[in-house]
Amino acid sequence: MERITSRKNPKIQYWKKLSGSAAFRRQNGEMICDGAKLLEEAVRWGVTVTALAASEGTDAAELPDVPRYLLPEDLMAYVSPMKTPQGIMFTCRIPENGMPAEGTRFVVLEGVQDPGNVGAVLRTARAMGYNGVYLLPGCADPYGPRAVRASMGAAFQLPVMEADYGDLDELKRRGVEIYAAALGEDSMDVRQAEYARFAVCIGSEGSGLSERLLRICTGRIRIPMESACESLNAAVAAGIIMWESVRGQKWRR
Amino acid sequence: MERITSRKNPKIQYWKKLSGSAAFRRQNGEMICDGAKLLEEAVRWGVTVTALAASEGTDAAELPDVPRYLLPEDLMAYVSPMKTPQGIMFTCRIPENGMPAEGTRFVVLEGVQDPGNVGAVLRTARAMGYNGVYLLPGCADPYGPRAVRASMGAAFQLPVMEADYGDLDELKRRGVEIYAAALGEDSMDVRQAEYARFAVCIGSEGSGLSERLLRICTGRIRIPMESACESLNAAVAAGIIMWESVRGQKWRR
Repeated sequence: MERITSRKNPKIQYWKKLSGSAAFRRQNGEMICDGAKLLEEAVRWGVTVTALAASEGTDAAELPDVPRYLLPEDLMAYVSPMKTPQGIMFTCRIPENGMPAEGTRFVVLEGVQDPGNVGAVLRTARAMGYNGVYLLPGCADPYGPRAVRASMGAAFQLPVMEADYGDLDELKRRGVEIYAAALGEDSMDVRQAEYARFAVCIGSEGSGLSERLLRICTGRIRIPMESACESLNAAVAAGIIMWESVRGQKWRR
Repeated sequence: MERITSRKNPKIQYWKKLSGSAAFRRQNGEMICDGAKLLEEAVRWGVTVTALAASEGTDAAELPDVPRYLLPEDLMAYVSPMKTPQGIMFTCRIPENGMPAEGTRFVVLEGVQDPGNVGAVLRTARAMGYNGVYLLPGCADPYGPRAVRASMGAAFQLPVMEADYGDLDELKRRGVEIYAAALGEDSMDVRQAEYARFAVCIGSEGSGLSERLLRICTGRIRIPMESACESLNAAVAAGIIMWESVRGQKWRR
């Protein structure tokens, strides 16, 4: 196990950049995560872990053929993407989970900038048995540290596609309904919509869905709510719609 | 309109403390908020606005008898609780919206530390027509800047009680069911629970509900999900349960 003590160490600089820059993550095909729970999830879903770093005094995890590094606590605090590092940090390959062609349930996010919201949507999508998540322009990087943490590892497993609008046309050609979650007189109550083959589009809280996306959508749905309210948090709205779309099915538990 | 230019100005120091410390907010009975949208909500719900501060070059809002201050942009960035200040900031009295004795729908949070989650729960509770939110020890301050922003103004309107466990006993005596949102063999499917007079308890994502709270609860409910998943984001779980509890009702819209 190599001990690192300097901020100028190339590894430290590399991790720091992985933590801070989505472009740098893409360029290198790697992401950085903090915490034993996420490490467990990464291993469970077959993600390739490329390095382990542990704070001094922490039980260092071990993985076959994965280089390990030991860091003083202050250096860990410096390089960790988390405010409160858990003592274990790791880098891994960005997963490439292809979108299943036979999928029948999808979420589409547009302009959802908050990484916590993006991660929470991934987490819920996995829990509700969705087949994948399309991220249209303007969304937070699903492989950034905060999003991965909020996803509780769903980012390792769930097919996620950084998509363009043309990818939704492709879905339409396969007979998938594209629902816009949007207020409005002509929006269908979420309880009345049909959930056979569908994708639900959720927009940013500030500006809603773009005109371009609304034109692609084949229907609009809305969550009924008290009249003084205009909207919900994006992850909460997505969660309610995802739940509503599957609540009629039989569950094993 | 008074112009402030120094970080050492007592107003600036006061606002900075209001922004950073829950204890200081309580001590002074005031909170600080950023943005025209929140200001609109505060006025709409009759909250007492105590000061307005605007960036130079911003259309300064005006309210009768409310002192106004003008700040250079860098000073606004320094004192604003937001990373990206909206140009308008204000302080107001912390609302005291008493918990309605005749209420039939409540949310109880325990140990939900993330202010974004606390705010999102308030926002959803208002949208779903809930009567109030009880915050047990360990929750983020609902009147902190991030929680208020995430609540989209629901913090101004919705009865919120920083409660102790005894307050739940009081609810029980009034015939209110106390449901614990908890996984477990003996938990009832959320679709089977009765939602007449009830409070739903949501715990922290890390450690769930305390033994003490579980003993007070009169029933346990769970959201069915895929077997590889253990839980959802606290605000998403609360949102799904709140929606499920009201989805059978007639809505005006």
